[in-house]
Amino acid sequence: MTKKNAFYAQSGGVTAVINATACGVIETARQHKDKIGKVYAGRNGIIGALTEDLIDTSRESARTIAALRHTPSGAFGSCRYKLKGLEENRREYERLIAVFEAHNIGYFFYNGGGDSADTCLKVSQLSERLGYPIQAIHVPKTVDNDLPITDNCPGFGSVAKYIAISTLEASYDVASMSKTSTKVFVLEVMGRHAGWIAAAGGMASTEQDELPIVILFPEVAFQKKRFLDKVKAMVKEHGYCSVVVSEGVRGRDGKFLADQGLRDAFGHAQLGGVAPVVANIIKQGLGYKYHWGVADYLQRAARHIASKTDVEQAYAMGKAAVQFALQGHNSVMPTIVRASNKPYRWKVGMAPLKKVANVEKMMPKSFISRDGFGITKKCRDYLAPLIRGEDYPPYRDGLPRYVRLKNVAVKKKLNTSFKVK
Amino acid sequence: MTKKNAFYAQSGGVTAVINATACGVIETARQHKDKIGKVYAGRNGIIGALTEDLIDTSRESARTIAALRHTPSGAFGSCRYKLKGLEENRREYERLIAVFEAHNIGYFFYNGGGDSADTCLKVSQLSERLGYPIQAIHVPKTVDNDLPITDNCPGFGSVAKYIAISTLEASYDVASMSKTSTKVFVLEVMGRHAGWIAAAGGMASTEQDELPIVILFPEVAFQKKRFLDKVKAMVKEHGYCSVVVSEGVRGRDGKFLADQGLRDAFGHAQLGGVAPVVANIIKQGLGYKYHWGVADYLQRAARHIASKTDVEQAYAMGKAAVQFALQGHNSVMPTIVRASNKPYRWKVGMAPLKKVANVEKMMPKSFISRDGFGITKKCRDYLAPLIRGEDYPPYRDGLPRYVRLKNVAVKKKLNTSFKVK
Repeated sequence: MTKKNAFYAQSGGVTAVINATACGVIETARQHKDKIGKVYAGRNGIIGALTEDLIDTSRESARTIAALRHTPSGAFGSCRYKLKGLEENRREYERLIAVFEAHNIGYFFYNGGGDSADTCLKVSQLSERLGYPIQAIHVPKTVDNDLPITDNCPGFGSVAKYIAISTLEASYDVASMSKTSTKVFVLEVMGRHAGWIAAAGGMASTEQDELPIVILFPEVAFQKKRFLDKVKAMVKEHGYCSVVVSEGVRGRDGKFLADQGLRDAFGHAQLGGVAPVVANIIKQGLGYKYHWGVADYLQRAARHIASKTDVEQAYAMGKAAVQFALQGHNSVMPTIVRASNKPYRWKVGMAPLKKVANVEKMMPKSFISRDGFGITKKCRDYLAPLIRGEDYPPYRDGLPRYVRLKNVAVKKKLNTSFKVK
Repeated sequence: MTKKNAFYAQSGGVTAVINATACGVIETARQHKDKIGKVYAGRNGIIGALTEDLIDTSRESARTIAALRHTPSGAFGSCRYKLKGLEENRREYERLIAVFEAHNIGYFFYNGGGDSADTCLKVSQLSERLGYPIQAIHVPKTVDNDLPITDNCPGFGSVAKYIAISTLEASYDVASMSKTSTKVFVLEVMGRHAGWIAAAGGMASTEQDELPIVILFPEVAFQKKRFLDKVKAMVKEHGYCSVVVSEGVRGRDGKFLADQGLRDAFGHAQLGGVAPVVANIIKQGLGYKYHWGVADYLQRAARHIASKTDVEQAYAMGKAAVQFALQGHNSVMPTIVRASNKPYRWKVGMAPLKKVANVEKMMPKSFISRDGFGITKKCRDYLAPLIRGEDYPPYRDGLPRYVRLKNVAVKKKLNTSFKVK
């Protein structure tokens, strides 16, 4: 095996643990300096490769790279950019080959979700279709938990933990206030297509500490009367309740509930979230005082309360990706294989990229309770190990000590520029 | 001193650490069983006293009471209810005396903010005005940090820490996304009258790790052009920025920015938050892609990342309140007195209630930077020790082990009921 350099990049929405994967990739590559030269990171994902904007990770100390494990967000910058097909945009592929060739890159690690898997698959075909020898390994990451084959996706467990804890804490709060003031708290969470994250809100209620939680899943068409009846029953029994609503909830007409055609005083369209919409429905239908929150980026950036399971798996995926490359694999993705629930045991598996790209894993129907507002035991058994364990970052003066890299650019070797469209 | 029972209640919006104060009150009272009989908690604040709905805290084990220290929200229920003046509503005061007399209550501990201090002051006057001997001690609590005399208020430090960390984490997130996607993240925080909590967002940026953060304070009238210029300059320099906006921000016309006269498709008024309003102003004025979040209850319930300083002070205030009572004081409030900044040293002081009730402490002008969008060194020096230290709750299966009390009711002794208006 001739010694080649590696390319690593982060793609799509970032997470609390995608840098833990970067840490796994870089630390493992550094242990194999006989086979892997340098790890070049793409500045802002694949765009860094296209524009020859590479970061020399060898300029970062071992200590700095280790600190990536407890730093949220994408340390090298991410992008939302999907390569087109070879037939549609051959110049992109030719450009990638030119950049890879100029920098002696033989390994391509792409860290992202479904769209990124598609980009990675296309790069993996450079060898057979354009004759440039490259091994492309996709490294799974997505808070949406919607990649197929893998039991779960790094990034999801930490969001799930954050939402479960936030729902627990807010429920305690509204319970205290409910006698004379707020009776319902509405929390909007991510998940445009699948209810994985909303389901995590249900974990706040346990056998030891039962809480009234109503979940609105994108998988279940919103029916106003049924919803109001449910909230009313909860408030009647418990004095209060929490509603966890997925941003992707739709009415029976298929339209997003968030899309209420809001206009300001001047008639301008306003984009609101779904939480205030649901809160208003409760106010108008039942007259209860409410509060609402929108977690947005806070949920996926909350490294301060990341799941230990998630951090370990994120690191393991990065490590496995490099090992797969060293074993000569191309066009594959490491996966998490659940071996048992109690005790939770998992191992690393391998999936062919062509079975991953553009396939979206939905939440099983059996995870949603019969009335459509809660989660089943099956769902709990699935989620429980993913939110388990804490992995606190170090602190200084009350704040987590997250690391920022120097991100030193690699000297360009091509004298051509490339415009990303 | 004859042995009397004590009444303790929680009032107003709850916090991550008000139960730590309850823990301080109950544990300290238990150490003085020769002088204080039982601690009866009011179910839902003063309403519990008026309706003779008392909770016997002696039915809770030492271990359960100790767990209050790490449990957010109000364990006995809170209320938003302000006693009227003696002249206006004499029957309420007579009822209180009847309940106190029936249960041999000689100590009254009321745990709340400015409105609650007023209620406590009125109760403290029962002795001289209606001849019922009682010692009323107010115990400070409010996330708004707006009580006078005390250097800071228990509850605020933990919200400040949560907002500082959330702003830090979200800033890292948007920085990663900014190349091809989101350039501005807007976070709405509490604070209708004063910008204390919004100021905490500024703590996310430090000397070691400077971040582009724009703060919108309720103390500074919102000017669209100046704001857009500031955001534009930040994005130009850093590629992204975070905006921390207080819910109480007003325009130069004095109207809340959140109040934009939103109407849904049917013409119904809709209550939105200020975050989406600010996000839309950015979108329309600068065209940047944005994300926005509303922390709402999450910020004040986030015991999982409470400030250690805050937890310690919350406990100390409860302890001091009982000690003041044992020393024979009436109509006072324990305070936090800052002795020095570096190293941070503080001690317990005492304030007369008549100087606390109905006095709102605003944020000093010297805490806001000259351009109105940031915090000064003076503000940083003030906030720094308040967010310092972590005080993690214990966990089970990935969730904090918060405690719920049995809250056993004390047998009623009066055969009259009382309707709270």
